[in-house]
Amino acid sequence: MNKNQKIKIGIFDSGLGGLTVFKSLASTYRQSASFLYLGDLAHLPYGDKSKESIVKYSQRIVNFFLNKEVDIIIIACNSASSVALKELQADVPIIGTINPSVQQVVKNCNGQSIGVIGTDTTINSQAYNKAFKNYNDYHIYSVSCPLFVPIVEEGWENTDIAYQIAVKYLSNFSTIKLDTVILACTHYPMLINTLKSVFNNLGHKNLNFIDSGDAIANHLSTELSLTVDNKSSDILNLNDEFYVTDTSYQFNELANRFLGANIHNIKLISL
Amino acid sequence: MNKNQKIKIGIFDSGLGGLTVFKSLASTYRQSASFLYLGDLAHLPYGDKSKESIVKYSQRIVNFFLNKEVDIIIIACNSASSVALKELQADVPIIGTINPSVQQVVKNCNGQSIGVIGTDTTINSQAYNKAFKNYNDYHIYSVSCPLFVPIVEEGWENTDIAYQIAVKYLSNFSTIKLDTVILACTHYPMLINTLKSVFNNLGHKNLNFIDSGDAIANHLSTELSLTVDNKSSDILNLNDEFYVTDTSYQFNELANRFLGANIHNIKLISL
Repeated sequence: MNKNQKIKIGIFDSGLGGLTVFKSLASTYRQSASFLYLGDLAHLPYGDKSKESIVKYSQRIVNFFLNKEVDIIIIACNSASSVALKELQADVPIIGTINPSVQQVVKNCNGQSIGVIGTDTTINSQAYNKAFKNYNDYHIYSVSCPLFVPIVEEGWENTDIAYQIAVKYLSNFSTIKLDTVILACTHYPMLINTLKSVFNNLGHKNLNFIDSGDAIANHLSTELSLTVDNKSSDILNLNDEFYVTDTSYQFNELANRFLGANIHNIKLISL
Repeated sequence: MNKNQKIKIGIFDSGLGGLTVFKSLASTYRQSASFLYLGDLAHLPYGDKSKESIVKYSQRIVNFFLNKEVDIIIIACNSASSVALKELQADVPIIGTINPSVQQVVKNCNGQSIGVIGTDTTINSQAYNKAFKNYNDYHIYSVSCPLFVPIVEEGWENTDIAYQIAVKYLSNFSTIKLDTVILACTHYPMLINTLKSVFNNLGHKNLNFIDSGDAIANHLSTELSLTVDNKSSDILNLNDEFYVTDTSYQFNELANRFLGANIHNIKLISL
């Protein structure tokens, strides 16, 4: 790669939740990188699919990105990171959500009791537990929260109903002294106010929340030596490319909500 | 078809909600019919997909059923019935959820104010409004309830959270004098106790609920002259065939919940 050229980063998710990762990366590396985002809406959500299907869909997307000559591929989906990352073939780095989040915990957190919340696929895969086995003295407590994604997609993330659903899931943590919570789903940053409020009322003050987007942004700087910009106010750039494998009536509205900005150049492709 | 042979009925849905339709049909026609059920779990849920994709997936399933020499095909999915039924090609009758439900309203209900609740795809398609245009004097009020499917899949259909979600959606009906409510999603019969309670508290007493499974069972008797058995206590029969296009860790448990019985011979196929 020519040093004067922008680095080309391909980001994918089964849906549009991965736009929260795009947002973190674009605001951190706006000057030094251009982005391709692919939402595999034809197979959304990955959380309901088998490992074999998720690997197949993910490899197709990796091949698409390789044809587009990306320099780095980001799996902005915890379900795919959990079950497919190790199976994928590419001659560029592929970075999932799990190792960056685990490394951020290990580097920055004093505490050793870690809560992990995510979809059924992510939690059942035990991918975070396995990743923490490389480090001593971390106790992992994980809870799957399947209704959080539909609650966010409905736009109800700050309602009393969202609060009560979160209480029902997170009360499992009430007897544990937690230090850190990993948001192991790219939709969950949208729920952060409700989550903070519930954890606070459960007696967990000053929790450290780990968000996949920020963790990956840090990982790209420390592990791949990408130059961090002063945070850019512009998230979107005309050179960025957005692809979806299917459309649904609300995908434009959802993209807008995850990003806080309108994407005008979304292309529909078939893989 | 030989009169001594059992009629062969193929039933499909994007997921397992259509098993509520299978249950109605199997308990009505157990002696005279055998059943094939296909859950297109690889593309679940159809409610999030485009019309083009739903038509493509549905035609593949129709072709699979035709190769299996079924006599009738039932689309036990309101999303597919709403947007795909008219596009599908087959030389056997294909019956969706919409006309049977509409006919049941027209035949049996005195009232003329009809509530329709369903997924976004079904409600946005306005398929029920269009079907009722053939009949005078029906006023259709429809509301999409996207969280009802994930609430049922989580097994929370009889919780206070389900009640509150239902209140939030159904309060739209509070100023309308309703006679009948069409459950325009095959998951919704699982929510019936919560729905009755909410409608009752909104002042809608003695509502008539139309369930796709019962409506299709009646339709097969009146339109295709199938012989109704005395209700059989056995739902499952060893000759029935069950197919899915993908697996997920919870599909056996879900199948059991929708059916109230264990299916042991589910086959994984690729279409």
